[in-house]
Amino acid sequence: MEYERPLFFRVMQYAARADRDVVGMVSGNPDWEPPAALREGLAEYAEADIEAFQYPPSEGLTKLRAEIAQRRGVDIEQVVVTNGAGEANYLAMAAALDRNSGDELLLTDPVYPYYPGKTELLGGTERYVPVAEDGQLDPATVREHASEDTAAILVNTPNNPTGAVYDEATMRELVAIAEDNDALLLSDEVYDHFDYSGRFASALGVDSEHRIVTNSFSKSMAITGFRVGYAVFPEALVDDAKTRHMLVNVAGSQPAQRAVLTALQETGPDYYADNRDLMAERVETFTAALDDAGAEYTTPDGGFYVLARFDDFPGTLDNVERLIDEAGVAGMPGDAFGSAREDWLRFALVTPRVEEAADRLAEYFR
Amino acid sequence: MEYERPLFFRVMQYAARADRDVVGMVSGNPDWEPPAALREGLAEYAEADIEAFQYPPSEGLTKLRAEIAQRRGVDIEQVVVTNGAGEANYLAMAAALDRNSGDELLLTDPVYPYYPGKTELLGGTERYVPVAEDGQLDPATVREHASEDTAAILVNTPNNPTGAVYDEATMRELVAIAEDNDALLLSDEVYDHFDYSGRFASALGVDSEHRIVTNSFSKSMAITGFRVGYAVFPEALVDDAKTRHMLVNVAGSQPAQRAVLTALQETGPDYYADNRDLMAERVETFTAALDDAGAEYTTPDGGFYVLARFDDFPGTLDNVERLIDEAGVAGMPGDAFGSAREDWLRFALVTPRVEEAADRLAEYFR
Repeated sequence: MEYERPLFFRVMQYAARADRDVVGMVSGNPDWEPPAALREGLAEYAEADIEAFQYPPSEGLTKLRAEIAQRRGVDIEQVVVTNGAGEANYLAMAAALDRNSGDELLLTDPVYPYYPGKTELLGGTERYVPVAEDGQLDPATVREHASEDTAAILVNTPNNPTGAVYDEATMRELVAIAEDNDALLLSDEVYDHFDYSGRFASALGVDSEHRIVTNSFSKSMAITGFRVGYAVFPEALVDDAKTRHMLVNVAGSQPAQRAVLTALQETGPDYYADNRDLMAERVETFTAALDDAGAEYTTPDGGFYVLARFDDFPGTLDNVERLIDEAGVAGMPGDAFGSAREDWLRFALVTPRVEEAADRLAEYFR
Repeated sequence: MEYERPLFFRVMQYAARADRDVVGMVSGNPDWEPPAALREGLAEYAEADIEAFQYPPSEGLTKLRAEIAQRRGVDIEQVVVTNGAGEANYLAMAAALDRNSGDELLLTDPVYPYYPGKTELLGGTERYVPVAEDGQLDPATVREHASEDTAAILVNTPNNPTGAVYDEATMRELVAIAEDNDALLLSDEVYDHFDYSGRFASALGVDSEHRIVTNSFSKSMAITGFRVGYAVFPEALVDDAKTRHMLVNVAGSQPAQRAVLTALQETGPDYYADNRDLMAERVETFTAALDDAGAEYTTPDGGFYVLARFDDFPGTLDNVERLIDEAGVAGMPGDAFGSAREDWLRFALVTPRVEEAADRLAEYFR
């Protein structure tokens, strides 16, 4: 098999086996409480009638799809609840390739490493579009790379790993480029609740038959292990996506969907705002320490990650392991995210020990 | 897309919308309680530390894989926990096709309808092997159909829809045929706890690098909606299967895996035996009524289903809908399971109203 298993688990295992205390900044696991209603929903479900323990509808609990549809302003028939955004992206990419209007997926470089893996699994070809130094994606560059071979343009906003947030004009132009090339814009928006810039714009804001939006509750509700995500498909593509979902997974897991439904219904905006503010503070703390360490870095406009570059310390797996052993901080190698950030390291700020990690880095590199 | 969405949901929707009381015998949803420890495990998990709400290992919780490995007598490294047997079968079939040793999957006729759908999704070709009138699969017939084009032989024992249970000699010979054709035997054993004949033999009993066994807790613990299953792979194939699992689903749902782990550890053999005995009684009740109705039928040696044939009433979707409206019993059309049982109807005995349904059928057809 050609496609590669993403490196995350390997780096986490190395850190777990290290002979010293290590601050883990590898994975995007939120370190805060899920909504209280989520725990309540799960506890209530544990006492439910036996019917509730059997197959949910393949496309997801109807009430959950209705809540999502209402919040996102789309028709419930367009919503498929998936096993996290991972499956949502898999279905979206398959939908793009199954249209037989090109076999190329335009990805950004740097890239979230699951995207090329999924592309190869599905028999597509990836083509990389470079982003600007600050992580912004210039639609004009995307247009240059698009052609009749393009099946889809796949973007992630707020972005992992760059922290870039694409504004409304960018999203509108990306959809237009997809339309002009008989392709789809696939917009993965799992970090949408973590926009520090106020400029985030969902692709759902652009009405078109040429875009699919994926999302999940993993980050917004701090439940990466529940595996509840969704995709919003154009009407013409939703039936085939449901079929593939059914043939691969039959359905998603009902306990997780029930708990998410309760949490979605009963959690107010403060929960989301508080966690976003917490992350924004961590960005300030971490980047201040990077200044002290003399590092170059991008200040994220959204998401969980900071990319940093230290002198003479390229972002290889070897250096990541060295940093674990010698500084006690575990990040991700930049070269795991394509070629454009090979010299960089990615740090996930979802740990209460951000300040400690920053101090360790400052001391190590000073 | 060529592959077809299985009919189950469509028939259930028709029954739900009927203008009269209908006994549902469509889907294989157990109608009994899950193990008490399963509910307890879920309630405990609802109060767990936040770490427990994040990604489980992609291949499944280590303790759950260890329990499975120990019970099945295999190495833990061979076990991948999946989103139900649905995903386990998808991974197993992909593993067979990815070996590039043939693109044909030998399926039985009658067939569980998800198998041809998955075969087409994965770009394989299905070839059907007829079974005997009583549902038994003659390995000599399988050998006649096997060739260098064969990627895998896919069997289900106890069988859905025939109720056949394949004995040890059969399983041994099926593995040998796979070996002789550089193919894999894929054995889907989700009904293994519902063997009324005492002759069930898992393919795990035959040591070979040429077999994959899939299973789930959906039927044995009455939790089809939890989506916890597993596959046992040969060492040489397990890494690629884990990669595909990671690229499609990232991981399974942790609440469901936790609850299953607790239930697996704390549930004694009586739970499983009681439910098997209940089903065996229902088989007797239902087949006795079929005798009264003058129907032809196969007495199942295992599993949840009875295939029955009524005079001048072929197993079409039209007739299934007529039976819902006129007799108040919902079954599945035999022609949904291939061509060999086109004249038959399949009834799932997972309802407390088996006797009532049987009486209705007897009255309708008498």
